[in-house]
Amino acid sequence: MTTFLEHDPRTGAALGEYEETATAAVGAAAAAAERAFAATRHRPNRRRVAWLAAIADAFDAVGDDLLAVADAETALGPTRLTGEWARTRAQVRAFAALVADDAYLDAVTDAPDPNSVPPRGDLRQMLVPIGPVANFAASNFPFAFSVPGGDTIAALAAGCPVVVKAHPSHPDTSRRCAALISGALRDAGAPDGMFAMVEGASIDVGSALVLAPEITAVAFTGSRRGGRALYDLAATRPVPIPVYAEMGSVNPVFVTEAALAARGDAIADGFAASMLNGTGQFCTSPGVVVVPVGEAGDRFVTRVSMVIAEAPPGVMLNATIRDGLVEQLARTKLLTGVTDAAGGGLSPRGFAVGATLLATDAASFIATPELRDEHFGPVAVIVRAEPGAMPSVARAIPGSLTGTIHAEAAEAGGEEVAELRDALVERVGRLVWNGFPTGVAISPAMHHGGPYPATTHSGFTSVGQASVRRFLRPVTFQDVPEGALPSALH
Amino acid sequence: MTTFLEHDPRTGAALGEYEETATAAVGAAAAAAERAFAATRHRPNRRRVAWLAAIADAFDAVGDDLLAVADAETALGPTRLTGEWARTRAQVRAFAALVADDAYLDAVTDAPDPNSVPPRGDLRQMLVPIGPVANFAASNFPFAFSVPGGDTIAALAAGCPVVVKAHPSHPDTSRRCAALISGALRDAGAPDGMFAMVEGASIDVGSALVLAPEITAVAFTGSRRGGRALYDLAATRPVPIPVYAEMGSVNPVFVTEAALAARGDAIADGFAASMLNGTGQFCTSPGVVVVPVGEAGDRFVTRVSMVIAEAPPGVMLNATIRDGLVEQLARTKLLTGVTDAAGGGLSPRGFAVGATLLATDAASFIATPELRDEHFGPVAVIVRAEPGAMPSVARAIPGSLTGTIHAEAAEAGGEEVAELRDALVERVGRLVWNGFPTGVAISPAMHHGGPYPATTHSGFTSVGQASVRRFLRPVTFQDVPEGALPSALH
Repeated sequence: MTTFLEHDPRTGAALGEYEETATAAVGAAAAAAERAFAATRHRPNRRRVAWLAAIADAFDAVGDDLLAVADAETALGPTRLTGEWARTRAQVRAFAALVADDAYLDAVTDAPDPNSVPPRGDLRQMLVPIGPVANFAASNFPFAFSVPGGDTIAALAAGCPVVVKAHPSHPDTSRRCAALISGALRDAGAPDGMFAMVEGASIDVGSALVLAPEITAVAFTGSRRGGRALYDLAATRPVPIPVYAEMGSVNPVFVTEAALAARGDAIADGFAASMLNGTGQFCTSPGVVVVPVGEAGDRFVTRVSMVIAEAPPGVMLNATIRDGLVEQLARTKLLTGVTDAAGGGLSPRGFAVGATLLATDAASFIATPELRDEHFGPVAVIVRAEPGAMPSVARAIPGSLTGTIHAEAAEAGGEEVAELRDALVERVGRLVWNGFPTGVAISPAMHHGGPYPATTHSGFTSVGQASVRRFLRPVTFQDVPEGALPSALH
Repeated sequence: MTTFLEHDPRTGAALGEYEETATAAVGAAAAAAERAFAATRHRPNRRRVAWLAAIADAFDAVGDDLLAVADAETALGPTRLTGEWARTRAQVRAFAALVADDAYLDAVTDAPDPNSVPPRGDLRQMLVPIGPVANFAASNFPFAFSVPGGDTIAALAAGCPVVVKAHPSHPDTSRRCAALISGALRDAGAPDGMFAMVEGASIDVGSALVLAPEITAVAFTGSRRGGRALYDLAATRPVPIPVYAEMGSVNPVFVTEAALAARGDAIADGFAASMLNGTGQFCTSPGVVVVPVGEAGDRFVTRVSMVIAEAPPGVMLNATIRDGLVEQLARTKLLTGVTDAAGGGLSPRGFAVGATLLATDAASFIATPELRDEHFGPVAVIVRAEPGAMPSVARAIPGSLTGTIHAEAAEAGGEEVAELRDALVERVGRLVWNGFPTGVAISPAMHHGGPYPATTHSGFTSVGQASVRRFLRPVTFQDVPEGALPSALH
């Protein structure tokens, strides 16, 4: 029996000891998922709508104790966690609504035409579920990207059983959420195996899950190292499967001279708040801000630095993340062209760190890959750009979930801003205008994805209704009589 | 300098010696593709419509000499090649029409709502091209899945430059097609680098192409071994990229007792014709047929056997494919439960082989993976099924491009056929009713794909308008003013 410890992030004290799921039990969960899939995959969608409604009802009935447990395990604070829990419940309702209507099956029909080149039969296409899904929970969202999160709910909505690997930083929250889901599914008549949770801190549990032959896709939210390891492992399977890993990014913010002149202080305050939000532990946390050289830019840097310097140290989720950041920062500060602008320092208690601003110039940023790597936590690199250099900085950004431009209305249609916008669109999955990247809406028009290393497949989103597409595949029915067609294709 | 030889499939005689592209030149082609992408990616779609129209016009102006060259290199015969060339031209026109309308960009908009959970800005999503694409041409379609084929045209339509690796079995055809495309693009004002062809018979050329950092996706049509090798190689890149490999399949055909009774002879003749079509060298060639035990099934087998026995040996595309099939067949015939029902034998001239029928029972088929592997060529396995065994046989089928059911109208809605249909839908990308799988239409409702090993990603098609989705990714524009929005999102 292997066990793992969890710790109170605020004090570093051990909170409890948990047992890892045995690899044989991981395999059994995947096999049960396959059986549940065989028993349900051709059933009407409305059964799944009822399952999701039951889960949403169970979530709605939960008291404050769940939030208290999550706060004790993550130190994210009651305000943030209340909002995240509301969002998590909203996700379940949104996916229930999505699959209540056959429109999500993307039916496409084409009438027969013997004279087309080549000749065409009666063609009717729709989406079908792919099979059991493995979902790797994130540390930084104990609800919205964890056991009860979007990946679990999207897969269930698609008709795919889920085996979720809980994150070992919040095992009590994970177990409570898993019990809510299992109970709701059981009461709503779903078969055993539609949902299971496995847990552990070693790589064995996750490896056994990715290699289980019944698993047909992997969803992951976390670090680049973790996501890439699962991606590489899945590629070694006799039957390779897609790994949809969302691995975070630097989410650059560009501020034009005109925007600085018009509202530089407000942008500085907004940027600092976005950067400090959740102790910088969002996938969409802005880690790079690009401002012009010159007086207005200096004033922006000074203002952000002051906010950063006055901010109390933020508590990070666990020791691994905190230690990783501290070590990475120590290396980054030694890089040529880097100035330690403000902040930093460790707190004596728990896993807290001070926020850090680093300053550099455009040429150093473009020349130094390590400066462009994500520093997961309350860290931002301020890049000072000469006139005209912003598009080059944008093109040097690694694939990112988001990119932001602060510009004035008068320059929005101009060539300079257009060039910057085009350069940024090449590197990101979401372009934000005069705002900040933190805060991701649940919408059919949302894209939470982007080129590698933001994700392992830039064609898919892990937030919003379209995220269900990761767990569906098209099938075409050719000349199939109506009596043998799925009702969505009648 | 490395060279490769090509041979006349009808005689085995050497036709000519060709020079492999140096790996440095492969890298240069990828770099030029990246430059062309940077110069064109934000330009209006109508420019690409003009490029595709120019290619289609150039193809329309070609005389019979191209077909004669292709026939000499592939031995596919003038009838088949005339049809394939017409289809290839139709594909270019279809993709030009597709991108003439912004609908293919799948714009999704959502109005701002500060009261939603979480709050939502103005969200507008559309697809953008991913970047330079590597396309690996197939041996069995010198036009439709080769240099001028669907993958090349779909990528260009999406706005992605293409570097195509020609298949060494038809180098002269490939060079002529590449010259047509290059000339048309140049005359239509496309930048250098939008299209390039590389060639070679060793693995060096393809490996250099997949590993070139500028390449953002790979399209491949060919053998499982070849597709899997590219997939594995791409997964080792610092920045991994999707490999859309279409690797063929066994395309099972199921015939019910009632269908046999009503029209067994016609189904037998249709099956034999589909199986012999193009010497069985289609990705959709039916390689497995499942018929009931008993007298009607015996009659079916006898009739197919007679057609097979009388068919002249078919010429295969090259020595590698022919030798591979001969060796695989020799092993398969030794498997427990296999009867050599009819046909077989080698022709003394060129790369010809006789068609082969193998017979087995359902239990042996389910127990023997090698029996369920594709035998690329004019080979089919006849599985004799006891009453009720067909769904189990269907569930044992490896992921396939197609599955076919021959059933009578009266039984189409019944439980037995429904169970078979459901089992088959789990394994295939296209379900064909009372027809045969060869013949793939260019349609938005077509799906030419399926679970592994049919493809390396069951979510995508390599035929039809939807195949363009392999080369596009979504981007969301949040609160972007109209002056800075792409016109498709106004």
